[in-house]
Amino acid sequence: MPDQKPIIDGAICPLPLSHHEQIVMGHGSGGRMTRELIEAVFSRHFSNSILDRNNDAASLELDAVTMPGSRVAVSTDCHVISPLFFPGGDIGRLSVCGTVNDVAMLGAEPRFLTAGFILEEGLLISRLEEIVTSMASAAGEAGVLIVAGDTKVVEKGKADGVFITTSGVGFIPPGRDINGSSAQPGDQILISGTIGDHGIAVLSARGDLGIDSTIQSDMAPLNHMIANMLEAAPHTHVLRDPTRGGVATTLNEIAIQSQVCMLLDEKSLPIRHDVNAACELLGFDPLYVANEGKVIVIVTAAEANQALIALQSHPYGENAAIIGKVEESPVAKVLLNTVIGATRILDMLSGSMLPRIC
Amino acid sequence: MPDQKPIIDGAICPLPLSHHEQIVMGHGSGGRMTRELIEAVFSRHFSNSILDRNNDAASLELDAVTMPGSRVAVSTDCHVISPLFFPGGDIGRLSVCGTVNDVAMLGAEPRFLTAGFILEEGLLISRLEEIVTSMASAAGEAGVLIVAGDTKVVEKGKADGVFITTSGVGFIPPGRDINGSSAQPGDQILISGTIGDHGIAVLSARGDLGIDSTIQSDMAPLNHMIANMLEAAPHTHVLRDPTRGGVATTLNEIAIQSQVCMLLDEKSLPIRHDVNAACELLGFDPLYVANEGKVIVIVTAAEANQALIALQSHPYGENAAIIGKVEESPVAKVLLNTVIGATRILDMLSGSMLPRIC
Repeated sequence: MPDQKPIIDGAICPLPLSHHEQIVMGHGSGGRMTRELIEAVFSRHFSNSILDRNNDAASLELDAVTMPGSRVAVSTDCHVISPLFFPGGDIGRLSVCGTVNDVAMLGAEPRFLTAGFILEEGLLISRLEEIVTSMASAAGEAGVLIVAGDTKVVEKGKADGVFITTSGVGFIPPGRDINGSSAQPGDQILISGTIGDHGIAVLSARGDLGIDSTIQSDMAPLNHMIANMLEAAPHTHVLRDPTRGGVATTLNEIAIQSQVCMLLDEKSLPIRHDVNAACELLGFDPLYVANEGKVIVIVTAAEANQALIALQSHPYGENAAIIGKVEESPVAKVLLNTVIGATRILDMLSGSMLPRIC
Repeated sequence: MPDQKPIIDGAICPLPLSHHEQIVMGHGSGGRMTRELIEAVFSRHFSNSILDRNNDAASLELDAVTMPGSRVAVSTDCHVISPLFFPGGDIGRLSVCGTVNDVAMLGAEPRFLTAGFILEEGLLISRLEEIVTSMASAAGEAGVLIVAGDTKVVEKGKADGVFITTSGVGFIPPGRDINGSSAQPGDQILISGTIGDHGIAVLSARGDLGIDSTIQSDMAPLNHMIANMLEAAPHTHVLRDPTRGGVATTLNEIAIQSQVCMLLDEKSLPIRHDVNAACELLGFDPLYVANEGKVIVIVTAAEANQALIALQSHPYGENAAIIGKVEESPVAKVLLNTVIGATRILDMLSGSMLPRIC
């Protein structure tokens, strides 16, 4: 590195950030280079009055955003997806959508995010900036502020480009109680759109398919769509996004928590033709493939149609469908009525079906 | 792997967790193996009524913990320390203390943590359990609950054992406003104990020193000590923990935020003899070495002695000292009056002085 100059206490003065094309260990030192990276990349794109105070923690006014009886929803999600960029998104958009959606699954209004970055030495700063730009854009769409962050750097070969852990804070209105143990016999099961798109899009970008595809990740912040739906169907019992493990695993979790049976109707499952074709080719079951922009809704039969119409009236929910119903028994099981008239047990995903996709 | 048996949908049924000694990719699949890992390791040690609801996000009652006018303090910290275990602590205790302390630096009472784990394939599950046990113990000491988490697994060689990102939520009592821009000329500067212990302890554990030492990390949750101190000295203006970059870098940040000068008195700096000796041997300045159980306090001159006594009366603050004062100019600078009577500018840490130590 030319042009380095000594400074008063004998350490080396780093070049301005613009002279670095890659992340170096000094960017994680906590000193001047960390500050420069934060100012040049993170603060510039994430700027808001809370983050800009630059304290060890962010301070959030409660009274302005909550009513008496509100609860706080808190969630966290580590994002380690490979590759970092793929059709329909990148790790930045994923890291915002994933946590926004987790908070929204309690019926909460997501408001604030924190973001922790683990950067691998050698990462191109231009790539990091693309990722950060994408996060800022997704946060804008979701209506959340990134209020606190952290940046660490590890040696080349000790990470995989960048890992991003986001945590989310939202507010649950008084009286709302949506959770995995509230599914009841008689409830209807809805999905907000086609299943398996994200997993297949990421696999396709890795070149693991050996086929060309135009399948895009469905990744999206679902909070606005969910807020609309909860107005139309206030007796929604469960919301959950079927990410890792897919729809089948997620429904198994709910079946266990609620001690009920989930009965799915195979012919009602919305699946894109190309996703289905890719799954057949690879021996995958789309019911186990990850989604990042879909929500499973379990709602009283009386409100199921209102919920469906509300979902379908939002761009992220236009392919929403009722895919099954909740029954009393067998408890803690998920059953599928297949197109050929058989009934099959859908267990949790066992082992590891797919590479890192979220 | 012997004894595997096929299940109905053709995937492989994993062995019970007890048969796995190491983390495998399936532990990050989101399916049955992830559930088994969470139940066997995380839920067992972190169990509480909020976490045990097993939803996508944790739901926290506000009314029970806040008064009208309270604010929420939120913070996040990625922990990538190497080695994972070192004299005085491990990455688990660090990941709790680091975030508890960041929340406490706003004068907030830390209450809840989230924890995101990025595990490297091949990590011994017994090591993970040691780390998780250590986190649970530190959380108990600090009085915080771990209410939400996430676990991802990356291929061998794509991480460094385990990375832990914790986020913290606390509550700031009405009327309290402690932040980095509040230092005022005339204020006194305190440190709660000896400096540089953590960085030198970790370096020593890496074998990079080439010397044997008995130096232990100072890692500790400081929230109870700080709460005591704030009762004794309610006009505290700034609290900040001098982690990466050390005391000198942290004071530079505050000097910039508050647009004041920090004038330190070298002979008043509490430094252990062995830390000093190690620093001299290695050409380090203890003022730039990381701490994980110390706080810088900037407080009105009228309350400085009360603050000092309150710190010294707590086990984590027994070596607390007044180390300097805030002056009007030169703005945004940190000066050191040395033992030989000279005055030296202490700049921010430039470049990268130390390996990964937090």
